[in-house]
Amino acid sequence: MSGAARPVRAGIVVTGTEVLTGRIADRNGPWISERLAELGVEVAHILVVGDRPDDLLSALRFMAAEGMDLIVTSGGLGPTADDLTAEVVGRFAGREMVLDEEMEEKIADILRGFARRFRFDEEAVRAANRKQAIVPEGSIALDPVGTAPGLVVPAGERVVLVLPGPPRELRPMWPAAIGSRPVQEVLTRTTPLLAYTVRMFGLPESEIAKSLREIEAGGVDLGAVEVTTCLRRGEIEIDVRYRAEQAPVAEAVREGLVERHSRHLFSLDGETIDAQVARLLRGRRLGLAESCSGGLLAARITDLPGASAYFAGGVVAYSNQAKAELLGVDPELIESRGAVSPEVAAAMSEGALRRFGADLAVSITGIAGPEGGSERKPVGYVCFDARLAGGASIARDPVIPGGREDIRERSALVGMHLLRTLLGGEDAPL
Amino acid sequence: MSGAARPVRAGIVVTGTEVLTGRIADRNGPWISERLAELGVEVAHILVVGDRPDDLLSALRFMAAEGMDLIVTSGGLGPTADDLTAEVVGRFAGREMVLDEEMEEKIADILRGFARRFRFDEEAVRAANRKQAIVPEGSIALDPVGTAPGLVVPAGERVVLVLPGPPRELRPMWPAAIGSRPVQEVLTRTTPLLAYTVRMFGLPESEIAKSLREIEAGGVDLGAVEVTTCLRRGEIEIDVRYRAEQAPVAEAVREGLVERHSRHLFSLDGETIDAQVARLLRGRRLGLAESCSGGLLAARITDLPGASAYFAGGVVAYSNQAKAELLGVDPELIESRGAVSPEVAAAMSEGALRRFGADLAVSITGIAGPEGGSERKPVGYVCFDARLAGGASIARDPVIPGGREDIRERSALVGMHLLRTLLGGEDAPL
Repeated sequence: MSGAARPVRAGIVVTGTEVLTGRIADRNGPWISERLAELGVEVAHILVVGDRPDDLLSALRFMAAEGMDLIVTSGGLGPTADDLTAEVVGRFAGREMVLDEEMEEKIADILRGFARRFRFDEEAVRAANRKQAIVPEGSIALDPVGTAPGLVVPAGERVVLVLPGPPRELRPMWPAAIGSRPVQEVLTRTTPLLAYTVRMFGLPESEIAKSLREIEAGGVDLGAVEVTTCLRRGEIEIDVRYRAEQAPVAEAVREGLVERHSRHLFSLDGETIDAQVARLLRGRRLGLAESCSGGLLAARITDLPGASAYFAGGVVAYSNQAKAELLGVDPELIESRGAVSPEVAAAMSEGALRRFGADLAVSITGIAGPEGGSERKPVGYVCFDARLAGGASIARDPVIPGGREDIRERSALVGMHLLRTLLGGEDAPL
Repeated sequence: MSGAARPVRAGIVVTGTEVLTGRIADRNGPWISERLAELGVEVAHILVVGDRPDDLLSALRFMAAEGMDLIVTSGGLGPTADDLTAEVVGRFAGREMVLDEEMEEKIADILRGFARRFRFDEEAVRAANRKQAIVPEGSIALDPVGTAPGLVVPAGERVVLVLPGPPRELRPMWPAAIGSRPVQEVLTRTTPLLAYTVRMFGLPESEIAKSLREIEAGGVDLGAVEVTTCLRRGEIEIDVRYRAEQAPVAEAVREGLVERHSRHLFSLDGETIDAQVARLLRGRRLGLAESCSGGLLAARITDLPGASAYFAGGVVAYSNQAKAELLGVDPELIESRGAVSPEVAAAMSEGALRRFGADLAVSITGIAGPEGGSERKPVGYVCFDARLAGGASIARDPVIPGGREDIRERSALVGMHLLRTLLGGEDAPL
């Protein structure tokens, strides 16, 4: 992407032996990277290190040598001896460690609450956590969300942002971290990027590559914007980032995609299928009947706050007896057609309509594997039935590729898209 | 960890703008790290870089400066112009790029198959992919699983392993990569590590830190083993890695933990709560009645293959009507005690026992928020009831901290642990 002065560059250092050894997945590096990109900052490196102070110090020095204006660390702010990020950053920045008494009092308050609730020894907890209030001199402490405060540490020409490891502590701290004076000073040199996201479902990624080549051949300067295509949770996400002066190019790309893929394109503005379905369900009552997806569709529907306004409930009818008893599916139908059949799927969604007094219902019954497949009904064969009470219905029975997890998650996703298609009208990808 | 000669150290460089920008999660770094740890190699850094050659070269030079004996890269071996790992590694190693004709023929064979199947123009595809057969002189090519060959590139005192980005291509290539002569030469200097994992539930991480201090004070040389404690999906996981000669120390650590935390310790050998519950459920029939967890417990139970042998089904009774209609909960009880109450939780699990003809059932009803809380029943208040048909039952009603997602996931986790407690006897953490 062209058009700007030297960009502001950032590096991210994720600490934690448990991340380095692969025991837990790093959720901070990618999240911070996305936030920085939105601010127009170019992230050059994400570096994961263990809880060895020398390795962390090397990581910080590497980021400095690479000319990073901003270094963000996550993790290593806890109460235990192997939590040593603050101290190492202090050494990197050439700053003494001092006790921040105000911060100590804040942490103590939080811990007193924990200690009372769980009946731990208050003094022992407090002593272990005093460590967390010892910070590099001249740094700005960010109020803790858990018990670990964040830090903004000026280090010569650059700024180090020191954030806690747990995402539920790190994320709420982000606005204060970005809003701090030293970080704001770095950010004055950036131009925020504009961006939009287009989402599609039900076509291969290679089709998008082909369309982009056509759009470029048609005279749109793709080099002036940044287009990233990726498969994300079974959908294609096309992300276009651009500086304000390139808005016409960005718009031409969006139009080119709409023109070629209206059938598969379900979101022009980044709205997720979950949000769309939630919106379409307003004022209605949904019932679900799941088998192979095992509750994943219900879990997805109820993931959004306020779902109780439109979600009556669901049955996870794993056994044939449950299909009969809880959804009223005729056992003879199961016997004659098989539990995984379009006929049983239809009977399941009819049962869900009736039992939940619902306006619409979706059913999913399939073979998630690894066992249970046959030549006629292989692993991955899944029957769907979506229907409105006394109205339209849609049935599908694809063979979904992949392993058990893929098949289950994809089934829930197809369920979401069938709901959108049933409620949303013409331009449906299914 | 002491006791060995200088350990063999490795660094991992993951390339790809889509990983750096957080759009797709890196699955290679953690996987490679785990494999190397099993071989006794100490992984010091995982570094994610984009598709900029300068940043990749800096990353390789950083790894060299840090004294890595082995550098493993993933990604950037494809046919497109931004796939430039082989060339940059060649430059790093000071080796000319040469055409490996045997490799070119292998790739061509693979591509002929693709081209026929998808009707692409064979010659065009082949030309685009010749690039993939141009490798640093003197390197060992690893047979492609997709179309990208891997490379083993000696670079002075160290070895660079160049692997493709897609995990389904990288993983099958691993044995050949590790088996190659230059890598084997590095590995002769390692001793494989032994390891065990202990899991606990229902206590804060700081208690483990305290216990480890006590164990050390009692004369156990913690410096001789590597102990990592982390919170993982709401449980505490303690991972102990050690060389064979330190087995008595590792055993002393395990005994010290068992002694202090028998009530909260549920796994001594790394077995997950999901696997334990699956084992305990063998020969029984489970029914579930969920409200605020919205199907997450059912999804977790059905995540394991073979769940149909013991899982009858579940009701996600989100509305009061569903609680009454599908689980037979008395509407007057809901009216008088509230939908979130120990009494309704008991009626829900009784209903699940009856409706599913189950041997045991768990119910979950709570306030996941962000709306719906009150002073007496705040957001996070969740009632659980686990019971055996005609037998014992366990009820709990904690206030779970955190946001909606935390409360929902934690509820499903508590459900799993209640199942274990109900079926497993005395040493239960709940």
